[in-house]
Amino acid sequence: MTESLIERRARLLGPNMSTFYDEPVHLVRGQGVHLWDSEGRQYLDCYNNVPHVGHCHPKVVEAICQQAGTLNTHTRYLHEGILDYVEALVATFDASFDTALMCCTGSEANDVALRMAQALTGKTGVIATDHTYHGNTTAVHQLSQTNPPPGGYWDSVRFVPAPDSYRPLGGVPGMAHAQAFAAKVQEQIDALEAAGHGFSSLILCPFFANEGFPDLPQGWLDPVQAVVRKAGGVIIADEVQPGFGRVGTHFWGHQKIGLKPDIVTMGKPMANGHPVAAVVAPAATMKAFRERFRYFNTFGGNPVSAAAALATLRVVQEEGLQENARLVGEYARDGLRELATRHECIGDVRGSGLFFGAEMVLDRGTKEPATAFTKRVANAMRQQGILLNFLGIHYNVLKIRPPLPFSRDNADQLIETLDRVLAETPLA
Amino acid sequence: MTESLIERRARLLGPNMSTFYDEPVHLVRGQGVHLWDSEGRQYLDCYNNVPHVGHCHPKVVEAICQQAGTLNTHTRYLHEGILDYVEALVATFDASFDTALMCCTGSEANDVALRMAQALTGKTGVIATDHTYHGNTTAVHQLSQTNPPPGGYWDSVRFVPAPDSYRPLGGVPGMAHAQAFAAKVQEQIDALEAAGHGFSSLILCPFFANEGFPDLPQGWLDPVQAVVRKAGGVIIADEVQPGFGRVGTHFWGHQKIGLKPDIVTMGKPMANGHPVAAVVAPAATMKAFRERFRYFNTFGGNPVSAAAALATLRVVQEEGLQENARLVGEYARDGLRELATRHECIGDVRGSGLFFGAEMVLDRGTKEPATAFTKRVANAMRQQGILLNFLGIHYNVLKIRPPLPFSRDNADQLIETLDRVLAETPLA
Repeated sequence: MTESLIERRARLLGPNMSTFYDEPVHLVRGQGVHLWDSEGRQYLDCYNNVPHVGHCHPKVVEAICQQAGTLNTHTRYLHEGILDYVEALVATFDASFDTALMCCTGSEANDVALRMAQALTGKTGVIATDHTYHGNTTAVHQLSQTNPPPGGYWDSVRFVPAPDSYRPLGGVPGMAHAQAFAAKVQEQIDALEAAGHGFSSLILCPFFANEGFPDLPQGWLDPVQAVVRKAGGVIIADEVQPGFGRVGTHFWGHQKIGLKPDIVTMGKPMANGHPVAAVVAPAATMKAFRERFRYFNTFGGNPVSAAAALATLRVVQEEGLQENARLVGEYARDGLRELATRHECIGDVRGSGLFFGAEMVLDRGTKEPATAFTKRVANAMRQQGILLNFLGIHYNVLKIRPPLPFSRDNADQLIETLDRVLAETPLA
Repeated sequence: MTESLIERRARLLGPNMSTFYDEPVHLVRGQGVHLWDSEGRQYLDCYNNVPHVGHCHPKVVEAICQQAGTLNTHTRYLHEGILDYVEALVATFDASFDTALMCCTGSEANDVALRMAQALTGKTGVIATDHTYHGNTTAVHQLSQTNPPPGGYWDSVRFVPAPDSYRPLGGVPGMAHAQAFAAKVQEQIDALEAAGHGFSSLILCPFFANEGFPDLPQGWLDPVQAVVRKAGGVIIADEVQPGFGRVGTHFWGHQKIGLKPDIVTMGKPMANGHPVAAVVAPAATMKAFRERFRYFNTFGGNPVSAAAALATLRVVQEEGLQENARLVGEYARDGLRELATRHECIGDVRGSGLFFGAEMVLDRGTKEPATAFTKRVANAMRQQGILLNFLGIHYNVLKIRPPLPFSRDNADQLIETLDRVLAETPLA
């Protein structure tokens, strides 16, 4: 007689809106690293990067409320909010990055970045990895190899094999793997030139988050960087996932791996959940884009969005959350490595700061992915009050990416629960 | 010695970020239909449709604050906020529209709508008017004829002449004009079929807002609707500007003109400035899209966005703002028509509800557009404390589109000031 929440959702949102977990979670409240469902049950959030400084951080909420009650309009009027924010944002970069374009979603940011690269190079060819996700606009969706859209994939988009430190290309780890990756990029540059598109940009997440965050040393992208520069192309670093201190050792993922991108995009965690995203670039790049494309974003950089973003950035800096990510991330990975001494299913432990996980295998010798098992583990953890998920080339990597105020006690709870779940979940 | 706000803006945002007016306005506060600049000067806002129910409406601000302090996460968890909103939203439509997809900007909504049409038809050809604007993503930007992007315009996008009730196609007004418009659409359908793209969708603002909101009777789009249906295509109604009661007589622009679209998009005013947009469609259409395209929008329909949108919709309904738009809009247009008896430069007065204006001409006989004059008038009005702007095929139509709580007193102030400015501004 009563319609369930899931039935109501299907009726109003359509039949194929995906949810997490076999039994979806009905959330009603969040605070810090915790979430509560409609029955009052508490969950430890080990997954959500959008509430970067913690769910409902009072300083971000206050900034939103204060500005929403004062003024919210667009950037065709002058306002100091966007300028104060961009000034604080570009200060976290190398000096060459001195301007920003604010928009509302990471998808919009990447969509703009692709066109910035076109404006710089006059070419249209794009290279991405074959296991990435950069967003959902028509153009950016072309970078994800899911269902081919009507009209097919664009010939101007080409793919290279995603790096995999656990199963490196040709079986060789480290810099030989890096050279092999660069050679694959060169092949696709040549193919784009031959097809008449020319080579515009290589877009990548410098942490290769969706690819399963392989363990790549600083300098690993040097060979590919040289190949791209030589071909006259540009590198877009998609920092939507690794940025804003999450990787612990550095504020940005490209800084960690030692990449010098030409254009940097960011989104999700930028304003702790308020729809804010941006493209950061040198002034000459911004100028090239703005001369070539007419671009205005009504909501982009509005006073409330700027206030939310500035409050979030200040909390990261004032509460030392990058350093917390580094320390607690190391501590949690030590815990995972300790679990690996007792659980054969853990084939690899990797990550940086508070973006880490474990690759699950059926056999450490063959490294056969334990994909179905990993999904069962994520579901069992949810039943135990711990929210995490899985990703990677074989969808067998536990994805642990909590809000940055995650503590050692939280890590202990995560590791202890995982220990129990791994013991109780059948591998096959 | 001190850097001006404009210089700082150019340094941080890049050199070509447009502002309104020869002397941009530095806003610091908004309330209802009023805005204040940094020197404390009050402006009557006759332009901004984003603060739909008035700047900083307390009920919307309260909804945002309350939800931002409680929970803000994405739609892969269950939450009632988005369902309550979509239920209220689709209730404003004909019964066939029963599902919605929430995203963050009108650009994203139109980008999705184009793909929904592709999913329904399996074709890629799109037709738009030659003086429209539907947003800023790579795909949607193709619908605006500004600078051609690198790689050129897509061959799959074709244009028809924007309707102009003041200078109708072939010189004939009314339904003959409508038949001529439909014939132009048929020509482009044939061209898309001949080029191998096939015909997917006609996208239009049912109020033709950017085209200068021509005065078109109900039923005017019937001939074009028949042409599109016969060709197996779909109609996308972009309601970003006319929607949510602004046109006074109806809640949606397509209802006013008697159009039966297949897909409806909306954005700007939807949550009074919070970055919220949506695509509304029949369940079968939503299903076709979700089967053909993997689509997830992290910020789309989050609890805060849904709360802001629901509060805005309820204020429109509870405060009778559609009826206010109808009455005050009629009153203001009467005022403009009275001005036209004394100011020869006013060639035409048109619009509906609180989206209206006057087309300025150098000569009523020749209808020669007074484009430079119109710009001078907008700037002079700004100096007199009245914010409005201009648009249209010849950029000679005063664009008056205030927040919906605009009153008769506000209209009096607008008309009295315009009377003075028209008298004082040199025509040539």
